[in-house]
Amino acid sequence: MLEWDKQELLQNVRERHPLVECLTNNVTVNDVANVILACGASPVMVTDPRELEDFIGLAQAVDLNIGTMAPELDLPFEKALAVAQQLKKPVVLDPVGAGAAKCRTDMLLRLLETYPVAVIRGNASEIRALSGEAGKTMGVDASAGDAVNEETLPARAAMASALARKHHCVVAMSGAWDVLTDGNRVVICKRGVPQMSQITGTGCMLTGLTAAFVGANPQNVLEATVAATEMMCLCGEAAWQRTQSLHGGLGTLRVQLIDALSLA
Amino acid sequence: MLEWDKQELLQNVRERHPLVECLTNNVTVNDVANVILACGASPVMVTDPRELEDFIGLAQAVDLNIGTMAPELDLPFEKALAVAQQLKKPVVLDPVGAGAAKCRTDMLLRLLETYPVAVIRGNASEIRALSGEAGKTMGVDASAGDAVNEETLPARAAMASALARKHHCVVAMSGAWDVLTDGNRVVICKRGVPQMSQITGTGCMLTGLTAAFVGANPQNVLEATVAATEMMCLCGEAAWQRTQSLHGGLGTLRVQLIDALSLA
Amino acid sequence: MLEWDKQELLQNVRERHPLVECLTNNVTVNDVANVILACGASPVMVTDPRELEDFIGLAQAVDLNIGTMAPELDLPFEKALAVAQQLKKPVVLDPVGAGAAKCRTDMLLRLLETYPVAVIRGNASEIRALSGEAGKTMGVDASAGDAVNEETLPARAAMASALARKHHCVVAMSGAWDVLTDGNRVVICKRGVPQMSQITGTGCMLTGLTAAFVGANPQNVLEATVAATEMMCLCGEAAWQRTQSLHGGLGTLRVQLIDALSLA
Repeated sequence: MLEWDKQELLQNVRERHPLVECLTNNVTVNDVANVILACGASPVMVTDPRELEDFIGLAQAVDLNIGTMAPELDLPFEKALAVAQQLKKPVVLDPVGAGAAKCRTDMLLRLLETYPVAVIRGNASEIRALSGEAGKTMGVDASAGDAVNEETLPARAAMASALARKHHCVVAMSGAWDVLTDGNRVVICKRGVPQMSQITGTGCMLTGLTAAFVGANPQNVLEATVAATEMMCLCGEAAWQRTQSLHGGLGTLRVQLIDALSLA
Repeated sequence: MLEWDKQELLQNVRERHPLVECLTNNVTVNDVANVILACGASPVMVTDPRELEDFIGLAQAVDLNIGTMAPELDLPFEKALAVAQQLKKPVVLDPVGAGAAKCRTDMLLRLLETYPVAVIRGNASEIRALSGEAGKTMGVDASAGDAVNEETLPARAAMASALARKHHCVVAMSGAWDVLTDGNRVVICKRGVPQMSQITGTGCMLTGLTAAFVGANPQNVLEATVAATEMMCLCGEAAWQRTQSLHGGLGTLRVQLIDALSLA
Repeated sequence: MLEWDKQELLQNVRERHPLVECLTNNVTVNDVANVILACGASPVMVTDPRELEDFIGLAQAVDLNIGTMAPELDLPFEKALAVAQQLKKPVVLDPVGAGAAKCRTDMLLRLLETYPVAVIRGNASEIRALSGEAGKTMGVDASAGDAVNEETLPARAAMASALARKHHCVVAMSGAWDVLTDGNRVVICKRGVPQMSQITGTGCMLTGLTAAFVGANPQNVLEATVAATEMMCLCGEAAWQRTQSLHGGLGTLRVQLIDALSLA
């Protein structure tokens, strides 16, 4: 399904079974675990600060998704980043809802200034908010005004690249067109189907998938991120096609998406 | 699938995409988000007290479901109600387990005395507990003795109406027969299938669906509540019919329910 | 699907509808609730320490799964065990991740020394860690080195039996071969399919199913535990067979597993 070198990156996930330690939100935590299993990696979803060091020590990558932030998670989030830095484990950050609430944006900006991350994976509104550009995020979905298309691509790609250079990381800006960049190289992925945004958690799932790919391919973070994004988009297309042939709706689409990831 | 005016209420959900801010339980939070997406609305599941004001400010309705209450959620629940009151956003309250534990009933009664809600959506045992009538709630499902049927309907409808008048809200009492009332008008819905109570979260899903309908139709709260209930019942029937034709069980029923809601 | 006496144990679940109060992790909580419903029992997933006494009082069994432990859950876990002891309700303990983090192992050992449990249901690495034997647990899945097979069975069965005798409980050690023992009798179950470990939560689901069977058959804890394990294994086989006939993957397998449990 993927091209040769991407197949190799996936093959590494399937052979190395990276352990992905996830601090993620309670809305989509089950889907994230199942996606990580479906691609051949192994999930652990631990947030207790007393054991983060043990589990991050065992893991090949950390998925940090602030979707359902809470006062009692401030310490786990910070500690996970500190431990990952100390143990040199790559962190894939999902800045859910950045821009929609000031305290959320502020927390993310402070964490990004303090700790290194390997990848920031978010939608266009979230990436814009982290870039400090003006705009409005409505809830946890990207605003229509932030969509990446033929016209807006140059400015949006420049914004993502600047964010990547600033934080020395890869930025994966998801949407109808995905923009993936390490600050120098920019890859555009135009695959996927809009129905994927009508089931909750496809963004979170992609972040988990990205962490699995980065954990198995730590020397090639941009390539791993591109491979994860393309895999999710192609599997989304296959899942929607199969859903339609079954005359199904969004419930079937969710099941077919996990099917496609596990059969890819 | 729905009659004309109910179709219009659903059309409003699909066109206005109301944002529904949900403070809900961690058992069914994913299903609630997917149901809200399936009907055409947009879910946010934020409970952090530091950002409730921002997200409720963006939202058209609030879904407050106390299913997995916890000491650390006392403040978020109270703050959500206070902010919703201040910003005049309609709240749909799901009093999960009212009557099963004293501290749960007490919390609900206190909140209802302090803050306005637009709709209370619960099963017959929960509505009875909030009405102060004697009885016993076993766990989170309605007791057999609370069932609404030909014989018990008059007394149950009077009880629901009195609760609606007391709190100036709509009461949606779910079960084999649903009783929906604003204190003056009473609507009975006898649709749906008993299998819906054998998958977890159909009550929570209906509460989320009701919040989506109320958010898109704030001037017609009773009508919106009736439309949400009928949509859930009819989709439950369709889902069970399809499940049987596929020789499936409760796993398939859950998938077909989301399918039916998204295809309605 | 099950043999005669196991059919009777299942029949008891379906006729007595035991209420199972679950303190479980937020990754698989929805699946656990749906499995408990699918087998004919009734789930409640309450963790608030203020109401544990009420709900455990109503329940026939307690499922205690420490998968996503957290400082704010220390008190609920301890209180649930204390209340269950006082009210003589059987507890089925799932020691998720025992051995993978010191604080997790320490907490489990302390709880087991202080409170009685009816069943410990874990994978081979977790049972080893609770037995005090050396070894290494990688995340929440069993290590390959802990696998039970023809060669390792005698030593592993002796280890499980010793743990059962020490804590006067049944030990259910899950894996390709399941070892179930009350310290005197040892039952081996070689059914099931490896694909079950590729969807998250099958262990948690089995713990919930075991609690349902124990709640409905409190006088026959070993038999109830064996029946639950065999039911899960046989339903896993049926689900995988059906998944293959549908050309499905891991998403379909999860749905088919709930289907098989509800249709058994």
